[in-house]
Amino acid sequence: MISVLLVGKGNVATHLYTAFFKADGISVKQISSRKLENVTPADVTIIAVSDDVIAEVSSKIKNTFVVHTSGSVSLNDLKNNSNKGVFYMLQTFSKDKEVDFSEIPFCLEATNEKEYQLLERLAKSIGIKIYTINSEQRKTLHVAAVFVNNFTNHLFKIGNDICKENYIPFEILQPLIKETFLKIQSLSPEKAQTGPAIRKDKKTIKNHLNLLNTGQQEIYNILTKSIQNGN
Amino acid sequence: MISVLLVGKGNVATHLYTAFFKADGISVKQISSRKLENVTPADVTIIAVSDDVIAEVSSKIKNTFVVHTSGSVSLNDLKNNSNKGVFYMLQTFSKDKEVDFSEIPFCLEATNEKEYQLLERLAKSIGIKIYTINSEQRKTLHVAAVFVNNFTNHLFKIGNDICKENYIPFEILQPLIKETFLKIQSLSPEKAQTGPAIRKDKKTIKNHLNLLNTGQQEIYNILTKSIQNGN
Repeated sequence: MISVLLVGKGNVATHLYTAFFKADGISVKQISSRKLENVTPADVTIIAVSDDVIAEVSSKIKNTFVVHTSGSVSLNDLKNNSNKGVFYMLQTFSKDKEVDFSEIPFCLEATNEKEYQLLERLAKSIGIKIYTINSEQRKTLHVAAVFVNNFTNHLFKIGNDICKENYIPFEILQPLIKETFLKIQSLSPEKAQTGPAIRKDKKTIKNHLNLLNTGQQEIYNILTKSIQNGN
Repeated sequence: MISVLLVGKGNVATHLYTAFFKADGISVKQISSRKLENVTPADVTIIAVSDDVIAEVSSKIKNTFVVHTSGSVSLNDLKNNSNKGVFYMLQTFSKDKEVDFSEIPFCLEATNEKEYQLLERLAKSIGIKIYTINSEQRKTLHVAAVFVNNFTNHLFKIGNDICKENYIPFEILQPLIKETFLKIQSLSPEKAQTGPAIRKDKKTIKNHLNLLNTGQQEIYNILTKSIQNGN
């Protein structure tokens, strides 16, 4: 039996609580980060709070092994005086949407091997995709996630804006978006590339720019240049 | 029975030929655009060739109704002396991958109602998603497609590059990419947005920029600004 104490009441903490509660071999308790007076002992204490209060919250916890769940905070930003680790799940969590933990990559790190193995057992109790990722790798992974999630989503927004302005339903683009995602399951993104930029089709590029507003043109130009430069 | 003559031997022409060949009520023939000496008559002649030769090829065809399949070429760029139309399928076609036409949006346009109805019957013989899209709308749809397909794919490439440089397998980002795509099935891209840009989290943005090369920084800055400006 592994005992887990979850600190935090946000999306990540609450989804984790539900998963651990159902898992075999795990006993779990969840508390608010504002009520740290009587923290119960646990094999693993998971702090799932905003990045900017991880240091402060961890400094108040006396338990033997304390981990956080952040993609952009170093292991050494934990300020407890005991063992440290990271239990980072690379996914966007929404409040009302059930989470399929078997689909989520667990990125684990710990100050020593024994604690690492404990985190691994914990991750395996609810998931299957387990990766050893150190603090430097995790930071770059977090940037990569911004590109493939936040920025990609913003391109969808621009596509939606262009459709709306021209009285075209956005749903018409959904099959293409789906294929864009499916294609990189079997091809590298580099090999999957098509379109006027990679073909260096100057005429189409010029026609496209004429249809866009200034902000959209700036993005179109910079991404076209980047595709053509191969960087 | 509708008789169809396909002009062209590329991906689009070949996938269309296969689909029409299997469909009920369609008789289909495919010829190369280089052999236009003996063009047989047909109810619909579909020119599926490169954008830059559509005008030339169409000028040589005497059939009663000639359409092209391009997203970025106007109906009036067809130079046949008879009826004109457009039969544009909004999807990327790969040579070796079977096409599910029931998933593909057909964007139709014709100079008059009778020909439009003929195109609609033709599209319905192999597909189910049929849209009336005029030349202006189709051009903007084509730009929108560049944003959600080519540019999105390039962001995946950058994510892949960042992973490679840091010895992280790209597969670790795939579930997040999948969720990014699934989220906009039920939420508008604007509402689906998360991350440091929309949160105006200056500290994380600064840390991210420090991890990127010059080209990546330029893209990061411009997309962050665009997310924050809501444009």
